[in-house]
Amino acid sequence: MKQSTQFKAFEKFVKKLQNKICNALEELENIKFIEDRWLRQEGGGGITRVMQPEKSSFASATIFEKVAVNFSNVTGPITSGMTKAVEMEGNEFSACGCSLIIHPIHPKIPTIHMNVRYFETDTGQSWYGGGIDLTPFYPYPEDFVYFHKTLAKACNKAITNSYAPFKTWCDEYFTIKHRNEMRGIGGVFFDYLDGEDKANFKLTKSIGDAFLRAYLPIVENRSKESYTSYDIEFMKIRRGRYIEFNLVYDRGTLFGLKSNARAESILCSMPPDATFIYDWTPKMNSPHEIMTQYYQPKNWLTFEL
Amino acid sequence: MKQSTQFKAFEKFVKKLQNKICNALEELENIKFIEDRWLRQEGGGGITRVMQPEKSSFASATIFEKVAVNFSNVTGPITSGMTKAVEMEGNEFSACGCSLIIHPIHPKIPTIHMNVRYFETDTGQSWYGGGIDLTPFYPYPEDFVYFHKTLAKACNKAITNSYAPFKTWCDEYFTIKHRNEMRGIGGVFFDYLDGEDKANFKLTKSIGDAFLRAYLPIVENRSKESYTSYDIEFMKIRRGRYIEFNLVYDRGTLFGLKSNARAESILCSMPPDATFIYDWTPKMNSPHEIMTQYYQPKNWLTFEL
Repeated sequence: MKQSTQFKAFEKFVKKLQNKICNALEELENIKFIEDRWLRQEGGGGITRVMQPEKSSFASATIFEKVAVNFSNVTGPITSGMTKAVEMEGNEFSACGCSLIIHPIHPKIPTIHMNVRYFETDTGQSWYGGGIDLTPFYPYPEDFVYFHKTLAKACNKAITNSYAPFKTWCDEYFTIKHRNEMRGIGGVFFDYLDGEDKANFKLTKSIGDAFLRAYLPIVENRSKESYTSYDIEFMKIRRGRYIEFNLVYDRGTLFGLKSNARAESILCSMPPDATFIYDWTPKMNSPHEIMTQYYQPKNWLTFEL
Repeated sequence: MKQSTQFKAFEKFVKKLQNKICNALEELENIKFIEDRWLRQEGGGGITRVMQPEKSSFASATIFEKVAVNFSNVTGPITSGMTKAVEMEGNEFSACGCSLIIHPIHPKIPTIHMNVRYFETDTGQSWYGGGIDLTPFYPYPEDFVYFHKTLAKACNKAITNSYAPFKTWCDEYFTIKHRNEMRGIGGVFFDYLDGEDKANFKLTKSIGDAFLRAYLPIVENRSKESYTSYDIEFMKIRRGRYIEFNLVYDRGTLFGLKSNARAESILCSMPPDATFIYDWTPKMNSPHEIMTQYYQPKNWLTFEL
């Protein structure tokens, strides 16, 4: 299908965003991304960029274990598999977005996920979606307050008072329902925001642009901390929960897997390795036990440090 | 709801089966299962038995890294979440089954899964389901032939010529659609087999009873082989694929997660640890490259060794 002017404007923004973020991460870690350009049979394609230090020798990497920053612009027929994952009408769709995930080596640096996207269909439907959410493995509430305050500013400057509902939406969306816990400490999430309203374009751009500001100061600060093998064990258990969320509930992942996109480009969001131990619980009174209490919705803007 | 006489006969069989299998595995590894008895709020419950040598010290375990042999007998209202995963009608259901998964330490011993189950609803529907499938990580085609021949005998002695269709069903069911490959080398799978037909009870029992005979000789034989760190790497990559299958496609797992059963008892099937490396492929001409070619449907009864 023919893509709208708004679609093209969004595409330009996300391509730039991908470059800006990749450059900043390459500079931080001093490792280059590998890039795969792929085409989808039904139409469109993408640029997958992955930073994945060699499996067996992590010698040169000190911060990131696996990073993926993906751009995609796909188009084609709407299938029943897709409509199970994403509400849409019509015969054809186009979707453009930038999606990012960072799994750090260092267990005191949080995992982070960001996504901004624009959809349109041949029936004239169009909408924005996106968000950023943080999955920390160690209880540094001051980082969580900083992260949420940065997102609140980014949302509210684009649309007045928009942080609060998008924060609530994020808490609900990133819940692992079968465990009644969130995968992390949330952030903001929005979807199906009217594609014809310029304020929603502004909001989506503002979230994309806030990513480095919200995350890098935490990375720089926490990478100086030391850590134990138990910190790693906890991180790997939580990575298991991350997988549970992504494969059972995440609409983006399920939409991707069912839309015949390139599986490797969708599943590059998976953690590099994860542990599943039956009935694992953190040690009593450990920082990790405190951390698990933070995987529930909290008002981080008024949190008392 | 009141459970039928047939339900109770099946329950008796699976409880015995759980004990028989656990005793055999305990003897082999000389480690005891831990047992958790749990109740489900809406009705029924289960007995989860897990063998999971201490995470950091595998000192005493040489064969198994994580084993789960579960019995469950659950009953209660049919919800919309359940009917998305399992086709059934009516207001209430009862389900009883034994489900087993073994993840070995040793990468030349295959992972195995077995399940037998009986469902009934208050509208008078009732059916059997079950199967056994093997997920090897090293190309020993003679083991795969032995495994399939053992299952063929077990099926055909209960119902003439039933192996062939159940083998095909298994190949289809255990396919990771987004990768166009099976999670292993299949086995047999059946579902929705008329609960009022005694031959189907006989078949389901025959499959349950064939488990030890189909698997233990392979374990005993292959545990003598040496292995490399690359063998382990390949196993961990394939465990990642196993997770992809279980969380995206497996009806039993999704039914369990959406029926408010105990999450830990369902997810004890997850591998103890798994690796996800972007765009991983086995070394050219390695045994592992050969193994990946076996993750496609093959006629193992006529396979030329």
